[in-house]
Amino acid sequence: MAEKSAKWIWYPGDFEIYHGMLQNFQREERGYGWPAYWKMDDWRKNVKFTREYELEEAEEFSVHGAGQGYVEVNGKKYALGETISCAPGHTKIVVCLGNMTGLPCIYIEGSVIRSDEGWMADDFEEKLPAGTSKLYTEKEQDPNHVYYEKQVVYPVSKKQIKGGVLFDFARMVNGTVKVKTKKEQVTICYGESDREALDIQWCYYKQENVTEDSAIRKRAFRYLFVPDCKEEEIECSAVHEHFPIEVKAKFSSDDEQLNQIWSVAKETYQLCSGLFFIDGIKRDRWIWSGDAYQSYFVNPYLFFDEDINKRTILALRGNREIRQHINTIVDYSLLWLISVADHYQMTSDTAFLSEVFDKMQALIDLCESQTDENGFLYGREQDWIFIDWCDMDKTGVIAAEQMLLLKCYETMAESMELLGRTGNKYVEKAAELKKNIMKFFWDEEKGAFIDSFESGKRNVTRHANIFAILFDIADEKQTQSIVEHVLFNEDITEISTPYFKFYEMDVLAKLGYLDEVLERVKQYWGGMLKKGAVTFWEEYQPNQSEDEQYGMYGDPFGKSLCHAWGASPIYLLGRYYLGVRPTKPGYETFEVSPQPRFFKELCCTVPIKNGKVDISYQEGVLSVTADRDGGVLKMDGREWRLNQGECVKVKYSL
Amino acid sequence: MAEKSAKWIWYPGDFEIYHGMLQNFQREERGYGWPAYWKMDDWRKNVKFTREYELEEAEEFSVHGAGQGYVEVNGKKYALGETISCAPGHTKIVVCLGNMTGLPCIYIEGSVIRSDEGWMADDFEEKLPAGTSKLYTEKEQDPNHVYYEKQVVYPVSKKQIKGGVLFDFARMVNGTVKVKTKKEQVTICYGESDREALDIQWCYYKQENVTEDSAIRKRAFRYLFVPDCKEEEIECSAVHEHFPIEVKAKFSSDDEQLNQIWSVAKETYQLCSGLFFIDGIKRDRWIWSGDAYQSYFVNPYLFFDEDINKRTILALRGNREIRQHINTIVDYSLLWLISVADHYQMTSDTAFLSEVFDKMQALIDLCESQTDENGFLYGREQDWIFIDWCDMDKTGVIAAEQMLLLKCYETMAESMELLGRTGNKYVEKAAELKKNIMKFFWDEEKGAFIDSFESGKRNVTRHANIFAILFDIADEKQTQSIVEHVLFNEDITEISTPYFKFYEMDVLAKLGYLDEVLERVKQYWGGMLKKGAVTFWEEYQPNQSEDEQYGMYGDPFGKSLCHAWGASPIYLLGRYYLGVRPTKPGYETFEVSPQPRFFKELCCTVPIKNGKVDISYQEGVLSVTADRDGGVLKMDGREWRLNQGECVKVKYSL
Repeated sequence: MAEKSAKWIWYPGDFEIYHGMLQNFQREERGYGWPAYWKMDDWRKNVKFTREYELEEAEEFSVHGAGQGYVEVNGKKYALGETISCAPGHTKIVVCLGNMTGLPCIYIEGSVIRSDEGWMADDFEEKLPAGTSKLYTEKEQDPNHVYYEKQVVYPVSKKQIKGGVLFDFARMVNGTVKVKTKKEQVTICYGESDREALDIQWCYYKQENVTEDSAIRKRAFRYLFVPDCKEEEIECSAVHEHFPIEVKAKFSSDDEQLNQIWSVAKETYQLCSGLFFIDGIKRDRWIWSGDAYQSYFVNPYLFFDEDINKRTILALRGNREIRQHINTIVDYSLLWLISVADHYQMTSDTAFLSEVFDKMQALIDLCESQTDENGFLYGREQDWIFIDWCDMDKTGVIAAEQMLLLKCYETMAESMELLGRTGNKYVEKAAELKKNIMKFFWDEEKGAFIDSFESGKRNVTRHANIFAILFDIADEKQTQSIVEHVLFNEDITEISTPYFKFYEMDVLAKLGYLDEVLERVKQYWGGMLKKGAVTFWEEYQPNQSEDEQYGMYGDPFGKSLCHAWGASPIYLLGRYYLGVRPTKPGYETFEVSPQPRFFKELCCTVPIKNGKVDISYQEGVLSVTADRDGGVLKMDGREWRLNQGECVKVKYSL
Repeated sequence: MAEKSAKWIWYPGDFEIYHGMLQNFQREERGYGWPAYWKMDDWRKNVKFTREYELEEAEEFSVHGAGQGYVEVNGKKYALGETISCAPGHTKIVVCLGNMTGLPCIYIEGSVIRSDEGWMADDFEEKLPAGTSKLYTEKEQDPNHVYYEKQVVYPVSKKQIKGGVLFDFARMVNGTVKVKTKKEQVTICYGESDREALDIQWCYYKQENVTEDSAIRKRAFRYLFVPDCKEEEIECSAVHEHFPIEVKAKFSSDDEQLNQIWSVAKETYQLCSGLFFIDGIKRDRWIWSGDAYQSYFVNPYLFFDEDINKRTILALRGNREIRQHINTIVDYSLLWLISVADHYQMTSDTAFLSEVFDKMQALIDLCESQTDENGFLYGREQDWIFIDWCDMDKTGVIAAEQMLLLKCYETMAESMELLGRTGNKYVEKAAELKKNIMKFFWDEEKGAFIDSFESGKRNVTRHANIFAILFDIADEKQTQSIVEHVLFNEDITEISTPYFKFYEMDVLAKLGYLDEVLERVKQYWGGMLKKGAVTFWEEYQPNQSEDEQYGMYGDPFGKSLCHAWGASPIYLLGRYYLGVRPTKPGYETFEVSPQPRFFKELCCTVPIKNGKVDISYQEGVLSVTADRDGGVLKMDGREWRLNQGECVKVKYSL
């Protein structure tokens, strides 16, 4: 029998819960740890792995495990690590493993008997197919450890300033610093900006009493400042750690600014993509559902890495049982649920949908338990109704939250149909909720959805209206009205956060306002480039002075200068300007509708499920090649089938 | 302000869950670890501690913690370990702490600001008064560690046998072995019996490749055998570890056998009492609810240690949420619930009752969720309906389980009344259940409760009938009938396990059959002494040969020779022969009704809550002194009030 490859196995979801907690415990601020401020679900400490085989031949195998336990073969017990001989015939194997400080997991090496998804994992309450990861397939590995690729990096400049030495690595580094110094010990001040590094009081990270032998914690920075030191007294380097995920996309155009935006966005996104999508590398380094939701949009246009989505979805959600909303935020729970549907759209991965469905069900049950007589979702005392950092009328139930809930009902209905169940219940709930949204929140006079109807203020903000279009809740007439009365109405308070700006741009692009969107991309992200950004920031306000621009949340260096959601141009360019999108789940069919009118030249690649699309535009000719069947090229109302490997060339001129 | 003593604090119940898991992961068998085979509840990894003070004076304090986190004082953050200065006035302190590998806990040292039960612990879902323990009151301690008292012990004999050397420590040792040897390495075979140690293939513990430097895992044994070794080539010693709990009782009589039974029972009980009541020191070292339930009976007659009860109760139960029965056994869940009431009877500790009540509620809710139309509790597919290792008709719902459920309803009703709530609901449930027990399980013709009514077999075993008397379910007439038709009926299969034998003896003693019970004690426990026991066994069958007597569960050395329930004579003697018992919770009033007729001399002490009773009997005079008010001496229908410190002397002769 051919050897199959073995994998480390664990209780499904627990790898993500364990590492998610490790990740959410990574935050550090000015010398102290800052564990995330929400309830942390726990991985299982005591797991039983089982499988039965019908062996055709005698076989030897051994079980390697992280933890303490035993192997039982047809009722006889063996130690871990022991070579176990089995006779041909029916063979029932049980491996019991406890581990209080890490993830209990095993690796089984035999020729037929090998650990993989065919094994069951049992926490003595529930028995499920074991969890695995492509990252852990070697016996010598330990799934409790994350293996980063490491790269030694050196500063590109060094200068004497303010009585100390400032090093500029000219890039964001996320790693450990090493010094060579003639001084007995030095202090290192870190900065994503030079201002931060030079501010020895307020810089976010500072390490005192550093010697050549100091083992220094991994941190993110671009600049290092060593106060009270002469240039010749110190040298430094760093070991930058990055999590290896292949970049499958390419973007090159005649617009150098756009090229640079794409490239810096790529750098930003790569840095914020580890085992999970985190918000930023300096601060918080936590897994936030809202931030991750936007990262899911970018992923198919850069990595097309299904695994990081799955890991993030599982880490955010934790165990099935749920009483607290994800990150304590009600809208983040709803976005989580919607993200599962988006992931399905990207991957057509029914197995994952099936694995995660019970957790979707428990979450929607929680949400339904907090709805009122109109079916509107309200926040409980302990809940955070976030939506955005902005002035919004949050009296009683609010519109934006109901838009998300409606999308969640639709997601539940669709997911159930995909899993062969009937989703009618949620179709009805969605219809009822939609009726009430229109009745209570649509304001015909204002031509828009109002935030709250309970207050009587009829306040209009962009948020609920953006969601209404994004999730296809508003009809065509309403959409036109929203465009006029909200999106292009200067009297409606502007979106001030990049988080919600993304949704606004997505909606504008979806509605075809591609000129406006491109203009904004170039102004907003181009503006950061002009400020010297090597990665994109958590927030950018063009009018802020240098003194103010690194501050946030009342902290002079509170702003994260390498923040995942800064990478959204990758999505916008890939989705709307190169025009690639699936038209059936998992790109079974997909569309390529590029917009050459914005470019003179293009030489781009966009990944798709199991393949890629090359798009180039040179001298008025657009060439599109997909390395997989299923695609169609659309332009100016015309369509061309994309056959595998065949280049379709279309003349295009303005 | 006077300095109060500080204590380590944690999320309440988590210390017990953490150490309970450690305990349940301690089992070892023939070279492999054997984690307990049930769902393990998890301690919280992320905890927030809070308290507000009105400081009259300025104050300095520092926070020590096991984990990573920070201290926030009126909104300003500090590192752990840092000395923090506070001005007088309102001071709000928050300590956030994460710990993935151990118990997050803190110790705060200031003059007013100190960690104790006045702090709240919050797992970001629920905020409760912090947990503490008298065991952890010093900054230098770590609540993740158990501090045992250590004692170096040496073998009392050494002999050359079977080509090796056999050491006899003449007592049970629970600790680590050290060797001095001229050989490069040796093998150590452990035995609770010499037979076990000498059986180099089947002894339960064996350590190979031992050198003088080997750090050897803690194990329980009396004998060590070093095969293939000459007497002059080896010396050994051990560091015995015991958990310090004061013995407050004393038993000395003219009956040397009884004295020895009491003394060996004491030794057995002490060895099996650590942070928790475990079943045995060699095997399983797990916390079993049924075993613990019997240990709770002995505790007030030996240690009167309230804390070990509380720790065991909390460890067994885990978190509030419950889906699996304790140790997977339905009757063990019910015994757990009853034990809370017993603990209240012993201690009148309303605070603990209040702390644990939510967990009682969740447990009884689980039980009720698996009752049928008659209110009878049935086992779900995953449940173990244990009762005892014996032949019993377990068709459908069984009588013994309903007796326990009835007692649980009564416990719920009483507990709710004690906590100032109305327990009527459970009074009604109890009445309804009792009615149905009588209707379906009482067999007038057999004069006994039958195991099952569904099978139609009308099989009678002792178990349900014993519970019916123990829990005052049977009326007087039924009780008499049970005595005649069951307890003293040789046609009813004898109880074969010491576990259930205890309940039988308790019932017989309760009914006044003290001659019979004493006779059985002397035969059963006296029999073990005659076999050379230095601690009491898990099971004793007088007719077994030496070849068989150490075997159990199909393992030739599977029997535990130092097993907690072997200590029950301490309870029987204290409760029925010295006659001490509380008549109001916490011994607010208590009774001493000794039975001098069984003795010529007595010189005994029995602890009571906050005190003790000395009982002596010399030359026909019984002298009883309580060092606390509230007691009454009862004998032969007469009563004497026991005033604090006053010796009551009563002439007694047969």
